[in-house]
Amino acid sequence: MMQVLIVGSGLLGTSLGLALRQAGHEVWLADRLSEHVELARKLGAGQPVAASAEPQVVIVAVPPSQFRKVVDEYGRRYVNATFTDVSSIKTQPLADVESIQGVHGRFVGGHPMAGRETSGPAGARADLFVDRLWILTPTEEVPEARLEEVRGLAEDCGSVVRIMTPEAHDRAVALTSHTPQVVASVMAGLIARAPVDDIQLSGQGLRDLTRIAGSSPELWDDILTANADEVDVVLAAFEAQLSAVRSALRAGASVREMLHVGNAGRARIPAKHGGPARTEDAVLSVSVDDRPGALARLFAAAADANISIEDVRIDHMLGRENAVVDLSVRAEVAPVLRELLIAGGWKVRS
Amino acid sequence: MMQVLIVGSGLLGTSLGLALRQAGHEVWLADRLSEHVELARKLGAGQPVAASAEPQVVIVAVPPSQFRKVVDEYGRRYVNATFTDVSSIKTQPLADVESIQGVHGRFVGGHPMAGRETSGPAGARADLFVDRLWILTPTEEVPEARLEEVRGLAEDCGSVVRIMTPEAHDRAVALTSHTPQVVASVMAGLIARAPVDDIQLSGQGLRDLTRIAGSSPELWDDILTANADEVDVVLAAFEAQLSAVRSALRAGASVREMLHVGNAGRARIPAKHGGPARTEDAVLSVSVDDRPGALARLFAAAADANISIEDVRIDHMLGRENAVVDLSVRAEVAPVLRELLIAGGWKVRS
Repeated sequence: MMQVLIVGSGLLGTSLGLALRQAGHEVWLADRLSEHVELARKLGAGQPVAASAEPQVVIVAVPPSQFRKVVDEYGRRYVNATFTDVSSIKTQPLADVESIQGVHGRFVGGHPMAGRETSGPAGARADLFVDRLWILTPTEEVPEARLEEVRGLAEDCGSVVRIMTPEAHDRAVALTSHTPQVVASVMAGLIARAPVDDIQLSGQGLRDLTRIAGSSPELWDDILTANADEVDVVLAAFEAQLSAVRSALRAGASVREMLHVGNAGRARIPAKHGGPARTEDAVLSVSVDDRPGALARLFAAAADANISIEDVRIDHMLGRENAVVDLSVRAEVAPVLRELLIAGGWKVRS
Repeated sequence: MMQVLIVGSGLLGTSLGLALRQAGHEVWLADRLSEHVELARKLGAGQPVAASAEPQVVIVAVPPSQFRKVVDEYGRRYVNATFTDVSSIKTQPLADVESIQGVHGRFVGGHPMAGRETSGPAGARADLFVDRLWILTPTEEVPEARLEEVRGLAEDCGSVVRIMTPEAHDRAVALTSHTPQVVASVMAGLIARAPVDDIQLSGQGLRDLTRIAGSSPELWDDILTANADEVDVVLAAFEAQLSAVRSALRAGASVREMLHVGNAGRARIPAKHGGPARTEDAVLSVSVDDRPGALARLFAAAADANISIEDVRIDHMLGRENAVVDLSVRAEVAPVLRELLIAGGWKVRS
């Protein structure tokens, strides 16, 4: 069991407090907003840091813009403690740490991949990190024992730890998370400026494509500007491909190859966070009444056959009270479920 | 009741046959592949066209590349019939018709917005068009009576008809459907070329963004090249915005405004096909065992409270047999459902 100080009682800091206390650690809390510390304490995330506290690990869970100041202050106060952070960028915090005397060899960068779209201590949950990837980006100067302390805390929160370099981390999330955010926001931005009559023809494809365009501008501005170099590399590649598509379209040429490569890329995306590449599920489309109960009965029918639903999509219909529900299941059980649903009176469309 | 000839016994043509026969019409079928006509006939979609047939309406349901030839041939054979089509582009078929003697004043372009990701007669369903938008694009030369014939057939299939000009249609779908396809495919194309270690950090955002990148390259090559001018206009606007983002990132400037405009655009997208702009639903995240039955019990709990689930997203967890299920419900009932689920022992995360 360790003494841990968490600086920053927002969503992540408070969730960490809850999870680490549940695992039996002694947790101290600090935040420049005393009401955040007080709420976090009431929720059971730990105690306001006492003068007598001697934390073994300090977890910095503040916005990127406050990171350097916090590490500087607490690094001088706790000269033997191991430091880690939880931000979704990893080279910039390391650069901050390297510019501060005496913390560099004690800092293990971290990124628990457990974002929420809420913020603040009120949304905190002890199970936020369960089964999530938690990337650690230690430098060579960090002793093995300090890495193991941070790894232990991450695993105590239920996460699966993966070690990467800060550069590899920032390059990977630029591709898989930061560029998709830009692409979704830019596409949604075109919708913001379009005539309302055009928007009425929107379908599920556009809705899925732009879902993350609803994310917090403040949070994402911090992330994108902090990882600007890596994001720009990916955006440059995106722009080059887009430009090639435009040239082909203007020349009356085929864009089939681009679409085939898109198929291939789609097939490589893991179905589960950090899991192996997805195997293609089969999709059954079922017409249901769009009323409470219809979905429950549909899922009960699948459960009766002991068939796991891998994914669900609900496509609401115009005007009437019904919907098409796309059920993704493992390809090998799809024919079984199809027969069973038809026998049960369900309207299966495919 | 009308005599209708459907040329093309693929997915759309065969589904139309099923729907129109269900509505009581007499349906004739033709296809250059006699085995397609035979399968469509067996499914109950109509009879192979007889020499004695005198169709009042001819529905052309062939790929864009065959459209002109088919209209030319059948336009001369049935000199009084009204002609319509079902393709997802509308100016090119009209130009084809205008280049043919004697069909122009009898042609009402149509686009039932009811795509599937399968093709061929075997996937046909009589209810494919129910509650879908069906766009009609008549020119001024078309007598009202012919428009009403086509409108009647669309409504008999269960669709909601909207009248637009061919140009307005092609401009709208370039924005809401064709450009999103290019954007998703280009993004997925970057994934196709990326190191596997980077892809492992993929999350739900990337999965949603690239879902339509799995669509048929052959079909989409036809659509994109046929609507190339309108698509290029939207892609140019996309590229200009993307370029502005890159300039800001390289200059170390904020991209917050772009993200805010994305928020606004996202909020304008209708929740239901052709419906009014969406009101923001509230999302409840619930931890469930990833086993058959858990989802059924969860939906049953919502149904017991008479609460309609507007949308579902399942986020599978790494390594363990559980998942986080995001339930979208109307904002006003979210607190009720939350209390009820917690009381029922569910782990509600937000």
